[in-house]
Amino acid sequence: MKSSTPLRGFSDAEFAARTQAAQALMAAEGLDGLLMMTEPEVQYFTGFQTLFWQSPTRPWFVFIPASGKPIAIIPEIGARLMRKTWIDDIRTWPAPRPADDGISLLTEVLAGCAKVGVLKGHETQLRMPLADWERLVQALPKVRFADATQLVRSLRMVKSASEIEKLAAICAIGSATFAKVPQFAREGVPLDQVFRDFRREALAQGADSAPYLVGASAQGGYTDVISPPDGTPLAAGDILMLDTGLVRDGYFCDFDRNWAVGRAGDPARRAYDVLWRATQAGIAAARAGNTAQDLFMAMSAVIAEMDDSGGDIGRLGHGLGLQLTEQPSLAAFDTTPLRENMVITLEPSLSYGDGLMMVHEENIVVTGQGGRLLSTPAPDALPVI
Amino acid sequence: MKSSTPLRGFSDAEFAARTQAAQALMAAEGLDGLLMMTEPEVQYFTGFQTLFWQSPTRPWFVFIPASGKPIAIIPEIGARLMRKTWIDDIRTWPAPRPADDGISLLTEVLAGCAKVGVLKGHETQLRMPLADWERLVQALPKVRFADATQLVRSLRMVKSASEIEKLAAICAIGSATFAKVPQFAREGVPLDQVFRDFRREALAQGADSAPYLVGASAQGGYTDVISPPDGTPLAAGDILMLDTGLVRDGYFCDFDRNWAVGRAGDPARRAYDVLWRATQAGIAAARAGNTAQDLFMAMSAVIAEMDDSGGDIGRLGHGLGLQLTEQPSLAAFDTTPLRENMVITLEPSLSYGDGLMMVHEENIVVTGQGGRLLSTPAPDALPVI
Repeated sequence: MKSSTPLRGFSDAEFAARTQAAQALMAAEGLDGLLMMTEPEVQYFTGFQTLFWQSPTRPWFVFIPASGKPIAIIPEIGARLMRKTWIDDIRTWPAPRPADDGISLLTEVLAGCAKVGVLKGHETQLRMPLADWERLVQALPKVRFADATQLVRSLRMVKSASEIEKLAAICAIGSATFAKVPQFAREGVPLDQVFRDFRREALAQGADSAPYLVGASAQGGYTDVISPPDGTPLAAGDILMLDTGLVRDGYFCDFDRNWAVGRAGDPARRAYDVLWRATQAGIAAARAGNTAQDLFMAMSAVIAEMDDSGGDIGRLGHGLGLQLTEQPSLAAFDTTPLRENMVITLEPSLSYGDGLMMVHEENIVVTGQGGRLLSTPAPDALPVI
Repeated sequence: MKSSTPLRGFSDAEFAARTQAAQALMAAEGLDGLLMMTEPEVQYFTGFQTLFWQSPTRPWFVFIPASGKPIAIIPEIGARLMRKTWIDDIRTWPAPRPADDGISLLTEVLAGCAKVGVLKGHETQLRMPLADWERLVQALPKVRFADATQLVRSLRMVKSASEIEKLAAICAIGSATFAKVPQFAREGVPLDQVFRDFRREALAQGADSAPYLVGASAQGGYTDVISPPDGTPLAAGDILMLDTGLVRDGYFCDFDRNWAVGRAGDPARRAYDVLWRATQAGIAAARAGNTAQDLFMAMSAVIAEMDDSGGDIGRLGHGLGLQLTEQPSLAAFDTTPLRENMVITLEPSLSYGDGLMMVHEENIVVTGQGGRLLSTPAPDALPVI
């Protein structure tokens, strides 16, 4: 037992349980190990938490053997922090070392394996240079690399009690931040100033960081939800939307709020009402036994009152945890069964008027009886500020 | 000419010049196109800027043909924002669509090519699922994918006047933020509170976001520069270090500052002095014609007065721009010639005492006469707060 874990609120037992659950699934699939290299997976299995991931320079690897603790194969600069986790076997090199950035160490670790799982599937990325990956595969002709995306996602999708506590904490911080918006967002304030004030408020409310904030403010409704803000002042008749991903202890919230500035027109009021009721339908349908697709259909049925196009966003919500967006997708293509203690966003959206759109979002935990809200629910009618 | 560009401060001509410079190099290497899929490259060639990259769900692709404008192959949700850039040819699909997340569109675009450049080298990542990449390669048996890392880095390393303006602006914001630290960091304040206050101040000073902040505070010196902060109060005799990457208009600063809390011991004062002089040596050596290695040697020679181990961080600075860390590396292995208008960090570090370390960092532009500081230089002796 180490004196402190860098990931506040998690015991070594939690990481051991995660690892053993992975090993049980690995045994069923005949995997000799899992090779993980992305931030959420390394954090999930080891507790290793650092903003150093923001630098693309260095790769980080964790190997989960068929039994026993994970092995960290990491740059020397991370060794001291990794030693504070429950991991014992830490192998390092003085990265960056372009000629051999961990590849010979990895080759050694994997050499005895017949079949190793890596993340190759939807929503995954290869967080190492492609040329290094090709070199590794060539150096290990006897190793078969299999896709372990389903294996890992099946574990990560269902949250532990400690994880739900973390998610509830950051959702509460998000809710408290949104509650303050009417104090700094009003007619005449530039949108980029609203964004800055929102982030400052989120930090004051206890967020470790406020990495994600998108939104818009425009007459009668907005047309785009991914642009950075400009200096245009909020104007009476605007619909303002802010959608944020805040982080505490590595866990994200992800929800949004809409406001009318000064006055609200009927189309926007109606869009808001439809989305609010779609969210209610989603909460009711978010029970263990239903599928992600069922949840999508339940929300779509309400949205169709005003917009039957199906939209161009591709889905109406997603998983949430160590990443801003995780699996499953609340989409027609995703038949993942909902399980108790999945944490997901309900994110119904619709188009209305002349190319306008509205998005509403809440964060919930799946239970046997339906969704339990982690975000303080938005009011049932479009608020005017 | 579009009415507005989402990347403030850059004209369409800048993006055209970047593209044409790439195309000249492509011709020399016999490349029929470049396939880019990472945030900085997509932003560099198109001006497309969004925080949506923080979600791992959707891939984004830009193809740079041998002549003419880049082609965007992107999720439908980004089309409206991409249309505000100088790009005309925008092909979309309703992502996420796991069965075909842009792959058939990409296959169409690449089908006529013999040799296409992608980023496979050091410090790069494959920002699409590995299985999709394998599918793409299989679908295009006549296409040879070559490594274009050197090609793209040679362009991105040297900054335009507009880019240097952006970098100077965010470095000024960083400097102004560091200047305020003595107002909120003092004996008794918990380190995590110092981190929150720092981020809030950076936003107040005009940063769009404050994604990167690492540091430490410990008796006589710190031992680790990548850990998240905990609630330990600053104590007299601590050395406090904060290292931040702030962003404005997509461009990063990346530098740090050290302070002694209450009182400074001799070893820390001496370490600070050595690093300060190493930085001066780096500034003098940062002139066009020298190499990254020369710069490393110039700083190492001063550091060796106190620590001749060579350290375990692997380098003493790096490029800076759309990423927190870019190429080149100020390291013994990197013989990249320095060119005018490269923007780099000088980041000398050393070990002293019983496993303590100190890091100092400034941001500079390479000129014909040496480095020109973008960050307001740190005082020449360890400041006490």
